Amino acid sequence: MKSKKVPQATISRFPLYLRALVNLLAREVRIVSSQQLAEEVGTNSAQIRKDFSHVGEFGTRGVGYIVEDLIEQISKFLGLLRSKKVILVGAGKFGSSLLSYQGFRERGFEVVAAFDIDQRKIGKKAGGVTVQNVDEIEETVKNIGRVDVGIIATPAGAAQEAAERLVKAGVKSILNLVPVNLEAPEGVPLRSVDLSGELQILSYYLLRTETKRGPKKRPK
Amino acid sequence: MKSKKVPQATISRFPLYLRALVNLLAREVRIVSSQQLAEEVGTNSAQIRKDFSHVGEFGTRGVGYIVEDLIEQISKFLGLLRSKKVILVGAGKFGSSLLSYQGFRERGFEVVAAFDIDQRKIGKKAGGVTVQNVDEIEETVKNIGRVDVGIIATPAGAAQEAAERLVKAGVKSILNLVPVNLEAPEGVPLRSVDLSGELQILSYYLLRTETKRGPKKRPK
Repeated sequence: MKSKKVPQATISRFPLYLRALVNLLAREVRIVSSQQLAEEVGTNSAQIRKDFSHVGEFGTRGVGYIVEDLIEQISKFLGLLRSKKVILVGAGKFGSSLLSYQGFRERGFEVVAAFDIDQRKIGKKAGGVTVQNVDEIEETVKNIGRVDVGIIATPAGAAQEAAERLVKAGVKSILNLVPVNLEAPEGVPLRSVDLSGELQILSYYLLRTETKRGPKKRPK
Repeated sequence: MKSKKVPQATISRFPLYLRALVNLLAREVRIVSSQQLAEEVGTNSAQIRKDFSHVGEFGTRGVGYIVEDLIEQISKFLGLLRSKKVILVGAGKFGSSLLSYQGFRERGFEVVAAFDIDQRKIGKKAGGVTVQNVDEIEETVKNIGRVDVGIIATPAGAAQEAAERLVKAGVKSILNLVPVNLEAPEGVPLRSVDLSGELQILSYYLLRTETKRGPKKRPK
């Protein structure tokens, strides 16, 4: 594994590669060329070879990659060999829908606790966990032993405080699903997903697509 | 507005800028320097000036940007001057939580219809819309007149078919929230958000942070 800093855009592509490879293996494809993998994820083979150069040397020119080996290498590269514990702050409709989200568990991320400030939500069960009072974060994290990710799905005004509570409790990283700019101390990795922002980005491309082609009437 | 192709990473930052500017205006900040805005969004002023060069020429060296003008310019750049109609396919817990998500409406995206294949979900009300049978997509879109975005939140196995139904019905762009690689025809912008992938990316950074520092015991 090279220690050179890997660009963030590159890192972001590895979950896509991993997903495609797991699908290939499920279809009993054992060997894959960079060309074939590129088609699966919608990129080109040069990009794939470049990205994979960060992971290490494997794959034989003209033969391709052994799917199973590649899955293992990428899993190792992404630090996925150990399963992870996740807690949630903000158990509203959106937040609590994540508690029963199969995709997390399938990929080795288990949501083990959920917190809210709202008395009407505290004590309710969702996806196998019982929503607790936010004041219990610190003690709960201590009891769990190690919490890898804290997901924030609070209202906008409560997100920064939630982040601070998570950091104080010793949670190792943060996934912010609230459309606010959060601050986290260095050493606590933070990723933000803003679904409204995604819609705005689509809006940009929509405008460009339609300007280029003119407003198009669809054939009947 | 320059017609030169703007890098995708650049486009992705504009929703952040817009959000920060709207917040600044709410705090009655009328003028902002690129330095100050950079701090708000966690980047640097050179980046901001470079990004803004794609939008047009405004801002006076040494004076800064007029917040209100900048909001208007960026909104125009992102095609946000017109509000957008959104429909949802997949009204499970995750999908239907989006029906009452305030952030969409606040930013001018209105979810006007939701569809599912599951008889137990069809007919149920969520966030002001009644879940319809997927077979009604085409007719409903026709009646709405124009649907800008179709959000896909189905199980993985149903996502590609959902995309095809949306495209066939004339929906203009797709936001895919399912962790599968979807194909959409050229001219139909597609964005994908994979929350599990986000956790995997955090896992990468977590591994690097901890390798660098060694497993750290938190002070009591």
